[in-house]
Amino acid sequence: MEIPEIIRNRRSIRAFSKRELPEEAAEVLVRAACMAPSAGNLQPWEFIAVSNPETKKRLADAAYGQSFVAEAPLVFVVCAVPGRSSWRYGKRGSDLYCIQDTAAAIQNLLLTATANGLGGCWVGAFDEERAARAIGIPEGVRPISIIPIGYPAETPSAPPRRPVSEVLHRERY
Amino acid sequence: MEIPEIIRNRRSIRAFSKRELPEEAAEVLVRAACMAPSAGNLQPWEFIAVSNPETKKRLADAAYGQSFVAEAPLVFVVCAVPGRSSWRYGKRGSDLYCIQDTAAAIQNLLLTATANGLGGCWVGAFDEERAARAIGIPEGVRPISIIPIGYPAETPSAPPRRPVSEVLHRERY
Repeated sequence: MEIPEIIRNRRSIRAFSKRELPEEAAEVLVRAACMAPSAGNLQPWEFIAVSNPETKKRLADAAYGQSFVAEAPLVFVVCAVPGRSSWRYGKRGSDLYCIQDTAAAIQNLLLTATANGLGGCWVGAFDEERAARAIGIPEGVRPISIIPIGYPAETPSAPPRRPVSEVLHRERY
Repeated sequence: MEIPEIIRNRRSIRAFSKRELPEEAAEVLVRAACMAPSAGNLQPWEFIAVSNPETKKRLADAAYGQSFVAEAPLVFVVCAVPGRSSWRYGKRGSDLYCIQDTAAAIQNLLLTATANGLGGCWVGAFDEERAARAIGIPEGVRPISIIPIGYPAETPSAPPRRPVSEVLHRERY
């Protein structure tokens, strides 16, 4: 058994070259994201693709000054829509499935970026209210991640992982 | 730009052949899962690999009688450990990052299964307490997903997706 190259090669990229992205980049990445599984196929996600420099600056500010966010050619704000999961699954839908589904979609997006020579970083530390205001996200739609995307200008090595022998339990915990 | 085949080909598989898995399956799948990004590289996840028939039956019961869970040769119970994220990130760590990180790990696991001719299904609908009791999960470790894995005995087509034009917003929501 083999682990796919894109899973082994994905890194969190925080430095980007000036090289422009293919025109179809946002669409292809979001199409891949949407192939993630979701509870009841409800697809409780929305993607905002930002390339305007002033808006990117506002997003970097919302992310407590993580300036690399503004330096990427393309920045996604990924949103979860709790109401889309809760009408069918209640609180478990809004608090769990909705977050899981959207996270699986983000992982598809990052892996597809890797497969196409791009890189990105999963930014979770930001002020949701400020990010929402920067791009007009309405009530009931929750920005849960900011993902800057571009051609990498760094080649970080893989961070250390907990050993599988510690993480994997057999038959019982 | 291309979408990787494993992302396009992954399906939710709920019917499994009798064929045995390679001995290293659980380890390889968990190794791939652990390559997912996690906030602060905290890796707030644990995996229990179950193949004992009686335990699988108890997990299927905890999943409200979804009998295909017991029919897979290998069943993962994937856990999030909120305390591992919250010591550093507070409530955002335990309620958001911890779930996202573990979900990204699950998506890696499912894609690696696909790449190796296996299939699985992300089961979220189950009683966490009963699942925890079935395999001795302690306090502070939260089972958030049950993932049966095996060789597929069905070839479902891709479920319909919301069109990208609806899901992708440009510059503003």
